[in-house]
Amino acid sequence: MHFEALKQRVYHANMTLPALDLVIFTWGNVSEVDREAGVFAIKPSGVAYDELRAEDIVVVSLETGETVEGTLNPSSDTATHRYLYRAFPDLGGIVHTHSPWAVSWAQACRALPAYGTTHADYFYGEVPCTRKLSDAEMAEAYEMNTGKVIVETFQAQAKDPMAVPAVLVAGHGPFAWGKSGENAVHNAKVLEECCKMASQAEIINPRVEPIEQGLLDKHYMRKHGPDAYYGQKKE
Amino acid sequence: MHFEALKQRVYHANMTLPALDLVIFTWGNVSEVDREAGVFAIKPSGVAYDELRAEDIVVVSLETGETVEGTLNPSSDTATHRYLYRAFPDLGGIVHTHSPWAVSWAQACRALPAYGTTHADYFYGEVPCTRKLSDAEMAEAYEMNTGKVIVETFQAQAKDPMAVPAVLVAGHGPFAWGKSGENAVHNAKVLEECCKMASQAEIINPRVEPIEQGLLDKHYMRKHGPDAYYGQKKE
Amino acid sequence: MHFEALKQRVYHANMTLPALDLVIFTWGNVSEVDREAGVFAIKPSGVAYDELRAEDIVVVSLETGETVEGTLNPSSDTATHRYLYRAFPDLGGIVHTHSPWAVSWAQACRALPAYGTTHADYFYGEVPCTRKLSDAEMAEAYEMNTGKVIVETFQAQAKDPMAVPAVLVAGHGPFAWGKSGENAVHNAKVLEECCKMASQAEIINPRVEPIEQGLLDKHYMRKHGPDAYYGQKKE
Amino acid sequence: MHFEALKQRVYHANMTLPALDLVIFTWGNVSEVDREAGVFAIKPSGVAYDELRAEDIVVVSLETGETVEGTLNPSSDTATHRYLYRAFPDLGGIVHTHSPWAVSWAQACRALPAYGTTHADYFYGEVPCTRKLSDAEMAEAYEMNTGKVIVETFQAQAKDPMAVPAVLVAGHGPFAWGKSGENAVHNAKVLEECCKMASQAEIINPRVEPIEQGLLDKHYMRKHGPDAYYGQKKE
Repeated sequence: MHFEALKQRVYHANMTLPALDLVIFTWGNVSEVDREAGVFAIKPSGVAYDELRAEDIVVVSLETGETVEGTLNPSSDTATHRYLYRAFPDLGGIVHTHSPWAVSWAQACRALPAYGTTHADYFYGEVPCTRKLSDAEMAEAYEMNTGKVIVETFQAQAKDPMAVPAVLVAGHGPFAWGKSGENAVHNAKVLEECCKMASQAEIINPRVEPIEQGLLDKHYMRKHGPDAYYGQKKE
Repeated sequence: MHFEALKQRVYHANMTLPALDLVIFTWGNVSEVDREAGVFAIKPSGVAYDELRAEDIVVVSLETGETVEGTLNPSSDTATHRYLYRAFPDLGGIVHTHSPWAVSWAQACRALPAYGTTHADYFYGEVPCTRKLSDAEMAEAYEMNTGKVIVETFQAQAKDPMAVPAVLVAGHGPFAWGKSGENAVHNAKVLEECCKMASQAEIINPRVEPIEQGLLDKHYMRKHGPDAYYGQKKE
Repeated sequence: MHFEALKQRVYHANMTLPALDLVIFTWGNVSEVDREAGVFAIKPSGVAYDELRAEDIVVVSLETGETVEGTLNPSSDTATHRYLYRAFPDLGGIVHTHSPWAVSWAQACRALPAYGTTHADYFYGEVPCTRKLSDAEMAEAYEMNTGKVIVETFQAQAKDPMAVPAVLVAGHGPFAWGKSGENAVHNAKVLEECCKMASQAEIINPRVEPIEQGLLDKHYMRKHGPDAYYGQKKE
Repeated sequence: MHFEALKQRVYHANMTLPALDLVIFTWGNVSEVDREAGVFAIKPSGVAYDELRAEDIVVVSLETGETVEGTLNPSSDTATHRYLYRAFPDLGGIVHTHSPWAVSWAQACRALPAYGTTHADYFYGEVPCTRKLSDAEMAEAYEMNTGKVIVETFQAQAKDPMAVPAVLVAGHGPFAWGKSGENAVHNAKVLEECCKMASQAEIINPRVEPIEQGLLDKHYMRKHGPDAYYGQKKE
């Protein structure tokens, strides 16, 4: 039992998913990384949330992808998580869900425009949508290739994954991330709300346009910039 | 009291419907079959879920359609269930609901396209919509003819009912099925979520297209194929 | 305290409205009539549901509209209820709400088409929408004129109010009724669900058409006709 | 502890926001003014609702904007609240949220038409949407300028803020107000419901029109006019 605290945190972050109406059944998974130890902890595959226990959380090697601690199979999406942790060194936690509004945008194969300050408070610009995988990418190492296409998308668009901590995978659904598993889940909920409000805004005004750069800067920076003044000073 | 365990299972599967927000009032019914005994157990007709008790479940003969055990009238849809059990020998449980998104697609008389992996995880291709019944089919043996038109739809499209465990009946609503009553209810919930997300995806992108065959294969097979690797190994 | 039982029933029917998500705040009222006694009992005006008590229910004379029992003002819609009870002699209970989907159809000034069997199980054909009131009808006796325009609508369309137990008042919202206050609330919930599913069906298929007469007859008659076979035999 | 009662009221008004499904996380804030004392009390910045305590509420000077009582930073929107209290002398409480339907209209940059009596019961005519802020207005004193553009909108349209107690800030979200913090929250919930029903009415009937002046007058005046007869007589 070397990773008790990590597993507890990952367990609680996972349990937040149904509490925030982001998953039903087994439709999601959260992980958190311990970079010093070279491992991440993740939900086991196909276990229902009301049966999940902290001791079921699986610890996986960041380098080899092998299970380091735990008796259950890790999430089928483990290779995606691992690829993202290795490519994006600032990620502390990752979450994948099938939350309905984010999945709807992913199925529509559209990036999520920044239509308002709610979006700008968390995502510095639009949340990208990946291209579809090729037949070859799907046939072999599908889950790792899902990670690859996410990284490719951020690199092609020169996006900082910490400034836009989420992505829509075409035809599939959202991944979100953050400083920790809990923070990743928070961002996944924000993404879901923004997807809902963006779709509704487009119905209310089919010619709606993204907010201007100034408002995007203002809201993102007052929460995340060097002179941020939102919230309480952290000791 | 020969069918105590079966009735208990059917009772619990029925009670899952309101818990999953799939029915209000009396708008749904679940059955499960015992093929060795040649019977299936089903909800009584018109009984509200908060008044339903396990002993109210009615046991019906698969061969004759007569009540074998129970004092209440079986569901008015009993003849549909019976027809499906007889035509599709692998069905273990069946459910009918008026869940709002699936009913909306049924009223729209459209098959549900496979727009994403959530769909592909459970349904191998689009969920079909039946033709409308003729006046003669409605006038007599309406409920049995509902079963007939479902079977006709699967046969005409050469679909395996276990690979696509649900259908939309035009102008009416969904039926779903599975290995058991509980599994049928699970599939009914998945159908409802997929109907919601498909409709939203079409609003977000009116030119949305079904996922390609490779992604459909990948997701369906990683859960249901001979080399499935989703979830935990079953002992 | 002559009308204790009636007030208790009306109190409970009113409390069902927030439980069924049909009202927030004070946005609805239920009444029930005692035709032998020549009175109906109704919610007091502007009282929040979480503060409502059975003894607050007001009893009003069917003939004069005067309060017979109770110290609070009756609902501001009392004159509408009274007009409907007098014009439609089979009504046992009436409910008015601002439930969101029914209000949306009322604001859209459209009758609700019968798009499926859920509708046909309760409403024999489309649920009509009234014309707008004239300035004169609004300026004086507005609430009574709301009743009048409902009755006018049913008479002009030769609709039986017991076969179509609800109406949409243009620019305003729904009224529903039934054999009792509780039954009226049940119909109001069905109307809300049917409004939601009709709107969604039109989005999914803009050319959706009402169900054919045969299916309407079949579903309405199997629940309400002389040979009804839905539910359990009533002693 | 000079403002114990005020802080208690503001605390409870804030806690009503998540209870009415108007906020998640930290996405909203309520204030209430004590004009005699020249202060208003407001939620602290970035504190989650499930961790908020009455003693965390911050008391701010109406004249200087300085904190008078409390150790936490007041809401980042404090300057908007203060500007509105000073410009609109009848306001007793103010609330800002990111409730999804009102945000969707704000993102769509559209005023909310008065499509029905639910709207008319609270808002005497359409709820306006502000113009967008200029780059200069965003770069400096952004929150105060948000207040300014709200006041400019009401003055340009000659609207009485007590007769239309809410506004949509373009690209951002709603502010609502009233006689107290609690009353402001009530109006914010009404706005959210009206935004939802207006959007749905436009989908159901793309040619929907605002209600005529007579119906607007009737409903607004029967609740708020000199001869109001809705509700119970206040002692």
